Amino acid sequence: MATGSSGSRRKRPSKAPSVEVLRVGHRLGRDPRLTTHLALAARVFGAERMFLHPSDPELAARIAQVVRRWGGDFEVVPADDWKKVVRSYDGAVVHLTMYGESLSRVLPRLARFPRVLLVVGGAKVPPDLYRLATFNVAVGHQPHSEVAAVAVVLERLRGLPRSGGFARATRVIVPQRRGKKVVERAGVG
Amino acid sequence: MATGSSGSRRKRPSKAPSVEVLRVGHRLGRDPRLTTHLALAARVFGAERMFLHPSDPELAARIAQVVRRWGGDFEVVPADDWKKVVRSYDGAVVHLTMYGESLSRVLPRLARFPRVLLVVGGAKVPPDLYRLATFNVAVGHQPHSEVAAVAVVLERLRGLPRSGGFARATRVIVPQRRGKKVVERAGVG
Repeated sequence: MATGSSGSRRKRPSKAPSVEVLRVGHRLGRDPRLTTHLALAARVFGAERMFLHPSDPELAARIAQVVRRWGGDFEVVPADDWKKVVRSYDGAVVHLTMYGESLSRVLPRLARFPRVLLVVGGAKVPPDLYRLATFNVAVGHQPHSEVAAVAVVLERLRGLPRSGGFARATRVIVPQRRGKKVVERAGVG
Repeated sequence: MATGSSGSRRKRPSKAPSVEVLRVGHRLGRDPRLTTHLALAARVFGAERMFLHPSDPELAARIAQVVRRWGGDFEVVPADDWKKVVRSYDGAVVHLTMYGESLSRVLPRLARFPRVLLVVGGAKVPPDLYRLATFNVAVGHQPHSEVAAVAVVLERLRGLPRSGGFARATRVIVPQRRGKKVVERAGVG
């Protein structure tokens, strides 16, 4: 599928990496909305799942409810031992940090991996993460948002979301120039 | 500047639109962190300013502090009358909503405007917004995050952030493969 671009037309990469996200240092009580945004952005831009450290069953249930309605296979997976997820990962571990190398330099190399794990820290990033990552990558060397960083890396690796909804959605939007149109479909059961 | 991409090389558009952001329906007390992420993402991806409805002087001051350290001209501008900002806007008003037309369809048209205002609603979007916008645009027809949506549209219109810091920064990151390196520079005074 060709996606419009300002300067040129880009094709969706034929063999885009499969991407997972790991959120380290989620603070229960303080971060639920931001981490929810992170999970939803990861889902819409084609990540397979989000590992969440520490685990947050309420948040995972909320995302599961979105998936039941809106389709797809995205899931939030508890990761109380985040180092284990990183160490056992069979692909490129990409720590997103404002201190890392420029995304534009690293992107061509990332796109050659079959699997990519995007790791975002919370307020305090464990120093080990810099060492354990395959790449430390900055999406702009400025303070900004892990939600924005994950979305943009996913978009650059996998292209814009397709229209038409996810598989097994019971709720699908019909794009409109003005207003809202949502179609409800019977669930698979 | 050419930026790496998975499928192709894209040039930074030579005449990218100048972009502003309008956040409608910010809830003081409840949304400060999300709206802060929105402002910081807008800044790093090259927006000029964020209009904020209703106004939030504390949040504006926090962003001004970031700009003093990290440079550039980005500002949060109070917009208690958001309709006035939209009606008087001299460019394309782009309401980001999951119900709108696909970004990939609209993007080539957006890129031809000299100025673009990206409008994101809060929990309750005023119905008038659909009518007043030049375009209603969906970055994926799925529930996700206004932070992700604004970041991805900005990236598609203006390319990835450049390295090297903003003008008049007193704090600049030197990209590293591992760890952190920050240079402090004297302010202009």
